[in-house]
Amino acid sequence: MIFPQSEFDLRLKNIKSSMDNKGLDLIIITDPSNMNYTTGYDGWSFYVPQGVIISLDNDEPIWFGRMQDSKGAMVTTFLKKENILGYPEELIQSPPKHPYDYVTNFLKTKKWDTKNIGVEMDNYYYSAECHNRLIKECPNAQFYDANLLVNWVRLIKSDNEINYMRDASKLVQLGMKKAYEKIKPGVRQNQVSGQIQNALLSGNDEMGGEYSGLTIILASGVAASASHLTPTDKKFIKNEGTIIELGGVKNRYHCPMSRTVYIGKPDDKINDIMNITNEAFENALQYIKPGNTANDVAVAFWDTLSKYGLEKDSRLGYSIGVGYPPDWGEHTMSIRKNDMTVLKPNLTFHMIAGMWMDTWGLEVSESICVTDKDFELFCDFPRALHLI
Amino acid sequence: MIFPQSEFDLRLKNIKSSMDNKGLDLIIITDPSNMNYTTGYDGWSFYVPQGVIISLDNDEPIWFGRMQDSKGAMVTTFLKKENILGYPEELIQSPPKHPYDYVTNFLKTKKWDTKNIGVEMDNYYYSAECHNRLIKECPNAQFYDANLLVNWVRLIKSDNEINYMRDASKLVQLGMKKAYEKIKPGVRQNQVSGQIQNALLSGNDEMGGEYSGLTIILASGVAASASHLTPTDKKFIKNEGTIIELGGVKNRYHCPMSRTVYIGKPDDKINDIMNITNEAFENALQYIKPGNTANDVAVAFWDTLSKYGLEKDSRLGYSIGVGYPPDWGEHTMSIRKNDMTVLKPNLTFHMIAGMWMDTWGLEVSESICVTDKDFELFCDFPRALHLI
Repeated sequence: MIFPQSEFDLRLKNIKSSMDNKGLDLIIITDPSNMNYTTGYDGWSFYVPQGVIISLDNDEPIWFGRMQDSKGAMVTTFLKKENILGYPEELIQSPPKHPYDYVTNFLKTKKWDTKNIGVEMDNYYYSAECHNRLIKECPNAQFYDANLLVNWVRLIKSDNEINYMRDASKLVQLGMKKAYEKIKPGVRQNQVSGQIQNALLSGNDEMGGEYSGLTIILASGVAASASHLTPTDKKFIKNEGTIIELGGVKNRYHCPMSRTVYIGKPDDKINDIMNITNEAFENALQYIKPGNTANDVAVAFWDTLSKYGLEKDSRLGYSIGVGYPPDWGEHTMSIRKNDMTVLKPNLTFHMIAGMWMDTWGLEVSESICVTDKDFELFCDFPRALHLI
Repeated sequence: MIFPQSEFDLRLKNIKSSMDNKGLDLIIITDPSNMNYTTGYDGWSFYVPQGVIISLDNDEPIWFGRMQDSKGAMVTTFLKKENILGYPEELIQSPPKHPYDYVTNFLKTKKWDTKNIGVEMDNYYYSAECHNRLIKECPNAQFYDANLLVNWVRLIKSDNEINYMRDASKLVQLGMKKAYEKIKPGVRQNQVSGQIQNALLSGNDEMGGEYSGLTIILASGVAASASHLTPTDKKFIKNEGTIIELGGVKNRYHCPMSRTVYIGKPDDKINDIMNITNEAFENALQYIKPGNTANDVAVAFWDTLSKYGLEKDSRLGYSIGVGYPPDWGEHTMSIRKNDMTVLKPNLTFHMIAGMWMDTWGLEVSESICVTDKDFELFCDFPRALHLI
């Protein structure tokens, strides 16, 4: 296990306390990040229904998933064998049969089907079908939305978690350096993304990395005006900018970073907007300290943009930590106006200024840890437009 | 666009015909593969709600998604600007607000909120919350499960699609060759996965690849007894087997391949089970031809296993084509007993024999295209246990 048992115990205690406050007897977790956080489970098996059941009257969490993946739960979790449930293969992609038939049967066997049950209503891995099966087969249960309940418990990191994010920060810097080194006119985007991926995974002499919650975002020219396009056979050309967004990952903990490169000499418009963005970014950083809110940081950023008559609709960031595809964000705090989440030591977030203009775009970001006094940047990497 | 407009038109015609047969006036597609198939849309934006609306009384599909991603829809789809809808940023991860508030408003504006509406009930990207918002806000609509409606239309590929899968097959073979070349005692798993990823993405002189619907599965020793564990800092050691599952990807079309390597001299048990598996695999191949069913292929495989007293619970394969995380399977045909799907020319599938034993495991697979006469293997790569 990559954390001492005491850390898992504390997580469970905090989650059960939150459940108790909300009047929930039991929650069914389907977010793979929450499954990992509560049990250590780690496998690319979330493409079939699986989850973790936490009941106030049960000491350990209970993992359920496809029979063949239950072996992965034996290898990666601290759970006793009796708390690892594999459902039969015949339920896989075989409608009208469904894995939640197994889950509802299990709840009935445990006499938990009359409880107050929380489910992650808006999670990728809790489909409308899963929910419908559950409420139909457990008519005596009361269902409540426990979306983000565990995510909010994850907001403040332990020192162990911070250390994994520091490891991840080394990986992402290797990746971005590789991008700077390999981007040249005539080279295909996917040749560069292959080299970046190699750097992110192969790592340094001591350690390597893992697949990321988000793939490599790398887009040039007009495609950089969109926020989530990915590398293709397109070749880099002169007088074009490229946005790059990468994640270093260690033990599923993420450290994202975005930068922008330009081949040739950018025109004044690009230089100006890059400089304004970096000024706004720097001003926002000054407001990161315990006691301030996400809103305070956002206001500092947008005030600077306004001073120059510049607009940006999208938010400036979000909390980060454990992640699985399709996302590395925790879906709790956002850095934007009116998000009144109070910053506290060991809260970690990705502050990203994506400026997606009509026919081009730029991005700059930092992964940040709030400290006792103010903040720490996970990376030490210049934010200026990188010229090639 | 990577397909002629006529191909998109034909897809839409087939989908509308299927809708008509099922009495559906309108469907809301949320599966990113189905979004790509119907519009060409391609972006890693599926971590926020998005979809494609197809209405029998509307010529073009309608894309909806986050405002900043609507630019990606402009770049990657054939849709007219009026059929690309960006919802406001304030709806992103900001409960109680939700992107489906926008979707229901749009349906009302178009007076489509009294229609027979199909939704993909069991898709990753159609959460219980999305569905609840929709049925609550459109009480006069009738909702039906249109899960897999588009997926079934995708089952038989066009020659263009097959050609992209052939491209992908070149990439996956580069990846597996790289794995064979780099796996050595003392090397970390993630150093090898980095090199594999580079091969899969960088490609050859003509073209490179893309991120895959499934990440690289690579697990050694007891971890190979589980089916979906991923590379770590663990070093390869002598007398241990490693399962490897990779996907080559071109224009989102996948060609997966699995193989097993062993460092040293495997004992008789491993050799025997590898040989039996390959014999069963070879026998199953002989049943692949138009008119036969998935069941026929499965029976041939399991009959051979039974002859040797060997068991395998998990299915032997599934249809493949367009894919996005978390999966590259199409969720329609499975190669298993009692799946009576009839094989037809240009049906493509991944036939994978995963033998996950108590403390070790092996895998072998082929991506296969049914032809007029029998079948074509996309790859030309020995299936024997690879010794290092």
